[in-house]
Amino acid sequence: MATAQRLQGVFSPVLTPFNPDYSPAPDRFVKHCRWLIEQGVGLSVFGTNSEANSLSVKEKCDLLDTLLEAGLPAERMMPGTGVCALPETIELTRRAVQRGCAGVLMLPPFYYKGVSEEGLYRAFATVIDAVADERLRIYLYHIPPVSQVPITPGLVARLLKAYPRAIAGMKDSSGDWKNTATMLAEFQPQGFDVFAGSETFLLATLRGGGVGCITATGNVNPGPIVALHRHWQDADADARQAGLDATRGVFQQFPMIPAMKAAIAWKSGNDAWCTVRPPLVELNAEQRTTLQAALGRVGFEMPNAASLA
Amino acid sequence: MATAQRLQGVFSPVLTPFNPDYSPAPDRFVKHCRWLIEQGVGLSVFGTNSEANSLSVKEKCDLLDTLLEAGLPAERMMPGTGVCALPETIELTRRAVQRGCAGVLMLPPFYYKGVSEEGLYRAFATVIDAVADERLRIYLYHIPPVSQVPITPGLVARLLKAYPRAIAGMKDSSGDWKNTATMLAEFQPQGFDVFAGSETFLLATLRGGGVGCITATGNVNPGPIVALHRHWQDADADARQAGLDATRGVFQQFPMIPAMKAAIAWKSGNDAWCTVRPPLVELNAEQRTTLQAALGRVGFEMPNAASLA
Repeated sequence: MATAQRLQGVFSPVLTPFNPDYSPAPDRFVKHCRWLIEQGVGLSVFGTNSEANSLSVKEKCDLLDTLLEAGLPAERMMPGTGVCALPETIELTRRAVQRGCAGVLMLPPFYYKGVSEEGLYRAFATVIDAVADERLRIYLYHIPPVSQVPITPGLVARLLKAYPRAIAGMKDSSGDWKNTATMLAEFQPQGFDVFAGSETFLLATLRGGGVGCITATGNVNPGPIVALHRHWQDADADARQAGLDATRGVFQQFPMIPAMKAAIAWKSGNDAWCTVRPPLVELNAEQRTTLQAALGRVGFEMPNAASLA
Repeated sequence: MATAQRLQGVFSPVLTPFNPDYSPAPDRFVKHCRWLIEQGVGLSVFGTNSEANSLSVKEKCDLLDTLLEAGLPAERMMPGTGVCALPETIELTRRAVQRGCAGVLMLPPFYYKGVSEEGLYRAFATVIDAVADERLRIYLYHIPPVSQVPITPGLVARLLKAYPRAIAGMKDSSGDWKNTATMLAEFQPQGFDVFAGSETFLLATLRGGGVGCITATGNVNPGPIVALHRHWQDADADARQAGLDATRGVFQQFPMIPAMKAAIAWKSGNDAWCTVRPPLVELNAEQRTTLQAALGRVGFEMPNAASLA
């Protein structure tokens, strides 16, 4: 195992800024990624909260190139590359590996529901065999509330046995701590790095031997989340976790992606940040006011947010 | 309204044949489409049962071109063009319209769940506005058991009001007759053509004023389904419907796509037909034997199936 490449810490599915006509806004994307890196957050670009499945393959390829040309560090990137069609998953994954990305976050094919473990095994195996690059590090993306296609312990075991090098870990966005505990107990000792799917389970995951979290709210509240990762063995760790939970609780009162974008629009002073692609809808004026008041009550801050405008 | 372009009758989401390495097999695709047209079945290529969401955008474009170059009739085609990312839905839809396809079958963006009517309205509106071609005829694809994103009567009403020309009808694959009855009662009188999502509700749909069905089993049992559409006002219509139900019931005992492909492999004598793309898995030998025996008991036939080899 190339230990040097093992990722850990706090990652964020980077929000994708759009122009009012729904086209991507690469300049703001670069600014946001730079800000996240400065805050100590790694770049899981093209995750669920990135509206990645609302982006075309070409848009994702172009945005990744834009980041790299802007000097953002590939060794801190874990782009999402799993889509429904294997040829496109292969294309996106191959490109990420060739560009030097430290890992990829891979959804299973998610259109067909109720598919078998054998079918999902073949899907991942087909991608790994086609990419055929020893630098490939896949983080399996388990998010049944959205994908509706779970990555079960049985599937992880089969994949790890067949591809111990390529299968690097998991993002567990089940929202079910029992599942994360199972993954930690069964697979983390084999070098399968478990990331909690949000900061809600960051402390518990670290105490259970996991390596960090990949969390939507890393886009807006990175400092305190990164601080918990750095100080999880300190006496105040539970208090820090409670603070994170309070801030996340505010965002969860709204559709998360529009709410995070509204928070950045507010703090950066650039309302263009509010735009989301259909089928999502931006917060309305009343929701934005309510969000800002609630964030004020939990002492929400975004240091240097003007740089995101 | 360009009445001449209104589609009706029996359509099939055309099975996509693959080679053993999972690449598409265009020659067999052409043969299968030709056979379907000869049987009186229209071509809803790139539907759910076509494994369309396992095909890349490029593969779909290439396969559509292959069919047209082979002389298959665009006026009998209703390709599926709805994917998760609007730029790709626009690309596929624009291409289908420019190639003269009589209609397109459009899924809503299906990754994000629990999205609002407003968000889905914007998604379809964005596609219609971007394609900006008066030849566009969209059949909305309502298949909540798979997409998990329903197309509600409220959404249909909004779309029909805003785009009375582009919104041509629906494929209702809810499996819920009450929903089909609602669509027929509320929208068919406005020229919104309702297709049942399978032959199970073909007779009921025709009696309710609908125009036909778009059905997976049209791939393997086209003759009797087309015959019911032609003779639905005859005295033996209910008996014909019962016959269709018996044959469909056999396929439904298995995963439908692998079972239909296994039936074609059996009748055509070409086992390559069995191949499905991951995450689907082909029937095993025991399942194939069981399928063949059960099909034999209901008198299943595929006339001229050797032409599909």
